[in-house]
Amino acid sequence: MKFKVKAMDITTGNTLVAILNSKDAAKFDLHVLDRIKIRKNRKNIEAVLDIGKSLKAIPSGSIGLFEETLEALNAKQGDIINICLAKKPLSLQYIRKKLDGGTLSKKEIEEIINDIVNNRLSSIELTYFVSACYTHALDTKETIMLVKAMVNCGSTLKLNKYPIIDKHCIGGVPGNRTTMIIVPIIAAAGLTIPKTSSRSITSPSGTADTMEVLTNVCLNLNQMKRVVNKTNGCIVWGGSLNLAPADDKIIKVERPLEINAESQFLASIMAKKMSVSSTHILIDIPVGKSAKLEGMKLAKNLKKDFIRLAKKLKRKIKVMITDGSQPIGNGIGPALEARDVLYVLQGDYRQPNDLRKKSIEMAGKILEMGKKAKPGQGKKKALEILESGQAYKKMKEIIKAQEGCITDSENIKLGRYAYDVTSKKSGRIKYIDNKIITRIARVAGAPKDKKAGIYLYNHIGDRVKKGDKLFTVYSDGKEQLKFAKEVVKESSAIVLK
Amino acid sequence: MKFKVKAMDITTGNTLVAILNSKDAAKFDLHVLDRIKIRKNRKNIEAVLDIGKSLKAIPSGSIGLFEETLEALNAKQGDIINICLAKKPLSLQYIRKKLDGGTLSKKEIEEIINDIVNNRLSSIELTYFVSACYTHALDTKETIMLVKAMVNCGSTLKLNKYPIIDKHCIGGVPGNRTTMIIVPIIAAAGLTIPKTSSRSITSPSGTADTMEVLTNVCLNLNQMKRVVNKTNGCIVWGGSLNLAPADDKIIKVERPLEINAESQFLASIMAKKMSVSSTHILIDIPVGKSAKLEGMKLAKNLKKDFIRLAKKLKRKIKVMITDGSQPIGNGIGPALEARDVLYVLQGDYRQPNDLRKKSIEMAGKILEMGKKAKPGQGKKKALEILESGQAYKKMKEIIKAQEGCITDSENIKLGRYAYDVTSKKSGRIKYIDNKIITRIARVAGAPKDKKAGIYLYNHIGDRVKKGDKLFTVYSDGKEQLKFAKEVVKESSAIVLK
Repeated sequence: MKFKVKAMDITTGNTLVAILNSKDAAKFDLHVLDRIKIRKNRKNIEAVLDIGKSLKAIPSGSIGLFEETLEALNAKQGDIINICLAKKPLSLQYIRKKLDGGTLSKKEIEEIINDIVNNRLSSIELTYFVSACYTHALDTKETIMLVKAMVNCGSTLKLNKYPIIDKHCIGGVPGNRTTMIIVPIIAAAGLTIPKTSSRSITSPSGTADTMEVLTNVCLNLNQMKRVVNKTNGCIVWGGSLNLAPADDKIIKVERPLEINAESQFLASIMAKKMSVSSTHILIDIPVGKSAKLEGMKLAKNLKKDFIRLAKKLKRKIKVMITDGSQPIGNGIGPALEARDVLYVLQGDYRQPNDLRKKSIEMAGKILEMGKKAKPGQGKKKALEILESGQAYKKMKEIIKAQEGCITDSENIKLGRYAYDVTSKKSGRIKYIDNKIITRIARVAGAPKDKKAGIYLYNHIGDRVKKGDKLFTVYSDGKEQLKFAKEVVKESSAIVLK
Repeated sequence: MKFKVKAMDITTGNTLVAILNSKDAAKFDLHVLDRIKIRKNRKNIEAVLDIGKSLKAIPSGSIGLFEETLEALNAKQGDIINICLAKKPLSLQYIRKKLDGGTLSKKEIEEIINDIVNNRLSSIELTYFVSACYTHALDTKETIMLVKAMVNCGSTLKLNKYPIIDKHCIGGVPGNRTTMIIVPIIAAAGLTIPKTSSRSITSPSGTADTMEVLTNVCLNLNQMKRVVNKTNGCIVWGGSLNLAPADDKIIKVERPLEINAESQFLASIMAKKMSVSSTHILIDIPVGKSAKLEGMKLAKNLKKDFIRLAKKLKRKIKVMITDGSQPIGNGIGPALEARDVLYVLQGDYRQPNDLRKKSIEMAGKILEMGKKAKPGQGKKKALEILESGQAYKKMKEIIKAQEGCITDSENIKLGRYAYDVTSKKSGRIKYIDNKIITRIARVAGAPKDKKAGIYLYNHIGDRVKKGDKLFTVYSDGKEQLKFAKEVVKESSAIVLK
């Protein structure tokens, strides 16, 4: 069947999509989400079919191709192309099997992950997969096969070292930038820690966003390898490295319902770690009201699952359940957090104690795992490395190796506009809401506006007097700051006793 | 936030969608599937947000509006509109609850159905609902509430009569056009039967497609009411009547994985029946290899579920499990089936016995339910009505009342091109594959090309000699017939012993 190309001025972000009008589709018995083969000259691609009702959008005899599809086919407006019906991906049968409560084989999981990574599944089909894994949790065997399939479908970093250290926090607590203190301590101790971090999706800043205030984080695998070989560590954005890329596509369909299929969530984390060849992993699970996990029971179960999975994957793991009842550190937002990190590394008197303490504790655990400290001596060793200035020196090396130049807290600039929020009464701080703090910082412009965010003057348990500053909101946009003020007024970020 | 409208030359078919480029979306912390309020002058709408990566498709400061959205807002290219974040529909929480295995309340089910009907859910969100109902089947109470919510969200036909008869076949067997024989028999007996039928989705023809060969089937509710008041019956297309419309939207996301959530499937059928105020319902469940249901056990369970649900809804019901192992009648495809129907009604010697027999049996059951025949006497009565010509007379009345004019089988035209398939050996027919027969008829052009389809010369158990005609394929398109021939050659529609 021959059709004339209509260039659709729109991207799908992923899948290759072609669109016919409903009359043409009916004529050839084609349906929404059918797969079609499209041929132009000698170029062949497979696309997912969409069907439009409007003859205006897609006239009879025309086929609308979205930007990615045009590109894949090297086609342009008015070209004549040939289409025919293709078979539906086998992975659909396997998704259906899982939805029916079946157990997937290695081959079936590989097929599904391969089709996800190669954009062969529509968002509806992918949603069925997420749903299936959510209601019929993958068993340990399936989870392990999923981890391996995810790793195999992406790039991997190979380093000729042992051990290779990694850490991961499940997130949900603003300001929690321990990674940027732990990595230089661990690297200074002589252990290898090729850390990849994510950007924020819903938080005021991801570690990659915060690190980007100081240096470049968009490295390719070769550049990353060079930095690690030179300095023992790195802190780069994982998103540009194509490590276990199925994950990013899955997350997209999880967001609308805030679904979190635990087995698959565990698999995604372990796959990212295995993609950089990590052998020793520390996991941070913050728990608290307004954190990702509210209850201790859930946290303990998650901990157990992490340990079981890591054992099967032959990775050493330690899991810490930490206090997630309030933000960690004083700064929230990329620049404010980066400043806190440098305060700690530089031993500045303005350093937030909670961030320093948590980082030392975690670094200590890793030093013990990596045999750089005897059991029980890790914290002391971490403290030594931090206080002697070795960690700060290492951080400067890493920043420089990643081709950045901000190494002093004095050189970090905050938003031009600021707004102080003061206490309306005297008392002791009872509660700080992570979610509201996040919302204010984001509305003020974080993480897009690196200089936007919040500076907290107090934490839970601190006494404040009426009129004392509780926090300052920063933004580089006047309008944004106005929006943030409105959020402050209509919500209670900080509650006094 | 002000944006300039870019008119996107595309429809979604349903949901109101607006699209921003990823940079603008990040600036305002907006995400895929967020809900936004769009205001232009005094007009306000809510739309689902999509995010595009391409600055070419959506330049900074612009918002792409799909055709439906433009129309709803009365906006055009270049208009300036205002947007702000709206709350996500409450129904998402309820879908999540069901996905977590919870039980939904009346209010929650109503909210979900209301949002589905009003296109407030994206296809991903709707998929989660279907998934949830599939893995955690609705209990009887939930199913009843779902039926009622579905009815209330659509139009209803109110008739001042009792009883009101309906029938339904779950489908899957080509040619099975009993409705067009049963309706005139029942109406001639003095019972009211306001029958709505569907068009084909995956079959060679739906009852609405076949009836359309003889008369108009696109009536509105008032026209339908007039026809029923005049003739006691009608056979119209349900799709244009807005009866329990949630169903059509749900079916769309079921197709890709051929999901069939039983509780929801039952609810959809009962909702359609209740929308036309039916009080007495006959259900036909064909069972057989290559039918929708292959096994007797599944059919019996479905029968039980139908009976339980109807009882709770205070509707009288009879469920027949019938032979679905092969096509019913000789003609398959709109014109060929319509001709079979008229052959039976006109008492033509070419009438297919299986279609005639099944229709009489079903009509008999209904006559007994409607107290027009004593128990055990229904079939006899139905036969009388058919053989006396009363049913044919009634059918002519209905055809005329629906403003059609084809009432004689001689006036039905078949495809210009035909292809005879002959037997390669002698023997007895062992098996006829419904799915392959369907595929051939559809590739030949049915149901879009009304004259396309298949004429079967034999059924299972019949003896054929080498060279005898097994079936003829008809089409109005030369190319289509060629495609159909290819399907015939590469598959085995009819198997001999």
